[in-house]
Amino acid sequence: MSVDIREQGLEKPVAVAEYLFRRLHEVGIRSVHGVPGDFNLVALDYIFKAGLRWVGSVNELNAAYAADGYARTKGISALVTTFGVGELSAINGVAGAFSEHVPVVHIVGCPSTVSQRNGMLLHHTLGNGDFNVFANMSSQISCDVAKLNKPAEIAGQIDHALRECWIHSRPVYVMLPTDMAEKKIEGARLDAPIDLTEPPNEGEREDYVVDVVLKYLHAAKSPVILVDACAVRHRVLGEVHDLLEKTQLPVFVTPMGKGAINESHANYGGVYAGTGSQPDVAERVESADLVLSIGALKSDFNTAGFSYRTSQLKTIDFHSDHCTVRYSEYPGVAMRGVLRKVVERVDLARLSRAPSPDVRNEVARNRDESDTVTQAWFWPRVGEYLRERDILVTETGTANFGIWETKFPPGVTGVTQILWGSIGWSVGAAQGAALAAQDAAAGGAEDRRTVLFVGDGSFQLTAQEVSTMIRHRLKITIFLIYNEGYTIERFIHGMEAEYNDISRWQYTEVPTVFGASDAQVRKFVVKTKGELEKLLTDKEFNDAGRLQFVELWMPKEDAPRALKITAEVAARNNAKMSD
Amino acid sequence: MSVDIREQGLEKPVAVAEYLFRRLHEVGIRSVHGVPGDFNLVALDYIFKAGLRWVGSVNELNAAYAADGYARTKGISALVTTFGVGELSAINGVAGAFSEHVPVVHIVGCPSTVSQRNGMLLHHTLGNGDFNVFANMSSQISCDVAKLNKPAEIAGQIDHALRECWIHSRPVYVMLPTDMAEKKIEGARLDAPIDLTEPPNEGEREDYVVDVVLKYLHAAKSPVILVDACAVRHRVLGEVHDLLEKTQLPVFVTPMGKGAINESHANYGGVYAGTGSQPDVAERVESADLVLSIGALKSDFNTAGFSYRTSQLKTIDFHSDHCTVRYSEYPGVAMRGVLRKVVERVDLARLSRAPSPDVRNEVARNRDESDTVTQAWFWPRVGEYLRERDILVTETGTANFGIWETKFPPGVTGVTQILWGSIGWSVGAAQGAALAAQDAAAGGAEDRRTVLFVGDGSFQLTAQEVSTMIRHRLKITIFLIYNEGYTIERFIHGMEAEYNDISRWQYTEVPTVFGASDAQVRKFVVKTKGELEKLLTDKEFNDAGRLQFVELWMPKEDAPRALKITAEVAARNNAKMSD
Repeated sequence: MSVDIREQGLEKPVAVAEYLFRRLHEVGIRSVHGVPGDFNLVALDYIFKAGLRWVGSVNELNAAYAADGYARTKGISALVTTFGVGELSAINGVAGAFSEHVPVVHIVGCPSTVSQRNGMLLHHTLGNGDFNVFANMSSQISCDVAKLNKPAEIAGQIDHALRECWIHSRPVYVMLPTDMAEKKIEGARLDAPIDLTEPPNEGEREDYVVDVVLKYLHAAKSPVILVDACAVRHRVLGEVHDLLEKTQLPVFVTPMGKGAINESHANYGGVYAGTGSQPDVAERVESADLVLSIGALKSDFNTAGFSYRTSQLKTIDFHSDHCTVRYSEYPGVAMRGVLRKVVERVDLARLSRAPSPDVRNEVARNRDESDTVTQAWFWPRVGEYLRERDILVTETGTANFGIWETKFPPGVTGVTQILWGSIGWSVGAAQGAALAAQDAAAGGAEDRRTVLFVGDGSFQLTAQEVSTMIRHRLKITIFLIYNEGYTIERFIHGMEAEYNDISRWQYTEVPTVFGASDAQVRKFVVKTKGELEKLLTDKEFNDAGRLQFVELWMPKEDAPRALKITAEVAARNNAKMSD
Repeated sequence: MSVDIREQGLEKPVAVAEYLFRRLHEVGIRSVHGVPGDFNLVALDYIFKAGLRWVGSVNELNAAYAADGYARTKGISALVTTFGVGELSAINGVAGAFSEHVPVVHIVGCPSTVSQRNGMLLHHTLGNGDFNVFANMSSQISCDVAKLNKPAEIAGQIDHALRECWIHSRPVYVMLPTDMAEKKIEGARLDAPIDLTEPPNEGEREDYVVDVVLKYLHAAKSPVILVDACAVRHRVLGEVHDLLEKTQLPVFVTPMGKGAINESHANYGGVYAGTGSQPDVAERVESADLVLSIGALKSDFNTAGFSYRTSQLKTIDFHSDHCTVRYSEYPGVAMRGVLRKVVERVDLARLSRAPSPDVRNEVARNRDESDTVTQAWFWPRVGEYLRERDILVTETGTANFGIWETKFPPGVTGVTQILWGSIGWSVGAAQGAALAAQDAAAGGAEDRRTVLFVGDGSFQLTAQEVSTMIRHRLKITIFLIYNEGYTIERFIHGMEAEYNDISRWQYTEVPTVFGASDAQVRKFVVKTKGELEKLLTDKEFNDAGRLQFVELWMPKEDAPRALKITAEVAARNNAKMSD
């Protein structure tokens, strides 16, 4: 009878959990990451009812990393944890998504509003009756916090949170009390989709900025386009592509922008990262009299230690919430509208174009006499192994820097975490990215390979997420770089230090121990260039019909060029004294 | 030369990192947990110089759990992580230590004060120039936050933090910028140890409380002592033991107080947890006309769902920062001084004593006809396997509830996390506890066995910490309860739900894959009572001369009696609606 009362006046009553998960489905999510816990169990029942898949990661941090990888591939993702223990285990992964502008909906099942009001001494609490302490922590790394405590407000809160998540491309935190999961709210609202359109710029203001941009662009003799992380994360690659096609200007990417541009395009000029760039790239970008910088995120590791030699006087910055032309700032003017109008209005007759450097995978040039697989040779060689539309996940450390030397085929999605740089992230992220591709394929999209490059030190942090890959039959090809420890740390400090050493695992047996049958996984140990060549040209290996695990031996004290440069700057910064 | 200037006026200059680690050594720490990261590397060099061992866990959450286990065994512990990514990965483990009153010194290597002042866009940041955001999060789960930014203040900050950590028996957060690690500060201060003595109660006030306590104690006809978590964590077991010896009153423990009392003592009456108690225990405690409740922490899982049937009118509560007699509160009066004086002043002639229930490991009574290892039979059987001074680590879930039915030999240390209840915790905690025992043995103490009981679902979250056990040759005996999933969740909600299932791992191969040679580990699969009997009576197994891993089959839908009761209450609480 109480049900009837609660439903009174509702046109189409639906449970809160159903409302929430149907909205997640609507915005494109098909799989929900997370770990069950006693405060989220009832809600989990509604995942299946909303046509979603429950992933069930091995722990919450891995689940958060996976949600990050899923969102980077599919646009947005969801993560469900339980109060206190679960959400705090995940918080580093969500913080990474905040730092790197990745939209993740973090749903935390929490004690009932009754228990909260009564300040009950429940498990998974600090024992002090404070039920807001974890939400307060997460508010620092979320662009919206929704505490679903009052049925009448919940639908609005959910819709608002999902919109904020999408528009700002950052995590939101949704706190779902156990007694609210099955409360009935108005489902008629679901008939209209959530409005995810970005608010347009104010027209006159936008036109003003466009005019300024065009003035400088038309006057420039050697303009270039430089595409960075936020162009990807704030979804303006369509506009960037149109700009490139229309203007045929030279285009470069930063490390965090890797994968944003078709690298087979004639105008693609390579990766720019200051002194970490190839010399001809640095020369071309730094001699440009105008840099159209789209979505810049100039962190230390994205700029080889703040080593840009470009001038703000020659730069126009396009951002998701403002633009800057030289030193003139235009707050509130988002890049999308400006870029669209620049494409429409640019006068090609008045545009000067200088050629781009030629970009190749420099395999031969970097091949030494030895049989050893060196970092210098390996990464260009990877470029020849990759296929169109591959999803390429690289871990913080050697892989993230090595990949600067890899030229991608068209359509490759690069998944890296360069600003936040949490080691172990890539194993979870690869799971999520592959799952997103699997979900997309189930919806009719073409199959894509997912390839992961991860160092042995990083792999150990999150190794058991391989178990989830097996559970969902994800056909990921894992290259585990076996070089005995934390290589990036060695290059910053303590080349021979014991604390940079790790235990020797039997890496290739990891998938088997975590549940893969021999039919489900192929395992390889590769110690030489010859063995690697053989593997990379093997048809079955390239077809990647199942999970593949490659233990790849590389020298302990070898590192990509760009890593060495960046690590040296990091060590210098660490030691810099003010007095 | 700048070194000379910095050292000017210092009698015995020492580096900040050396000062910190020498203080950790002084308070009893011998091994430091953590994971290296670029903002803590220089500091790590000083660990060895201070005579400490670096543990090097496989990830930060495991390291935090291990630090928790170390502190529960050795009194206090230290954890070193790196800024942002490392500390947030550990934060759930540190929150657990806060919740459960465990003193852990969390040291976070962070960017230099210069980088912080300049708001540099560094890796491991949110990209917003805020270098205090993570410290703010940790301040919620720390009893002191020390930001070591000014050399002149650092020694005082460190000493204060360590004192707070010890006195309050809770984590402290120490933020160590890279440019401060090697700054010279006054080392002469190290000649005097940190004052760790608790401030005494104000004498007259304490005497007043003692008189009130004695009045009720002398008047009572059937008083009992009930020992809970905070008696252990706030180190009053000496006083409790003296009280027991002097008064010979019946004594009971709560689940979180398990191990506090010598369970072979004639007056030991068993585990009291309301309806979760054995009937004779419930009857004895609930019929007492006075309960001396020492260090109570009446959480849901510690009381079988708030099911005490004792009256506050018949209770005296002793706490670390106050006492309560019936409804009279005495803030600021700490239990230690009061207990000491009660022991001194109690008039044995005026004391009434009623006998305690007899406590046995009820193996025969719980043995059914089947060959299956049942929860009911297993836990009493464990009591016969345990030896004096064993360290017993039990995981949230079946083990934490099952252990209520296990009578400990003298000197057993019980390591459980019942309030915070973070699954996976026990694998790290066992590593830390065993390491603490190893450190103590190196200092001349007797060898102790460490035994871990963990469910398969929980084990998967933190499995790779077995690698650290192997690295440090810890002789832990691991019983992995193979019952196919999250049993405690099944009993709360979703007995058959897919989300409570996990993948089937080859558990016994886990140590081998993580680096153990055949000489380093013994592996067993146990499916029947007979096989278990054989193993538990095997001499080599009992001697536990190396890592031992037992995959122990138990039925999927079986659970300890107390778990079933508690889970039912939890489910009811979750669903309780206010309107």
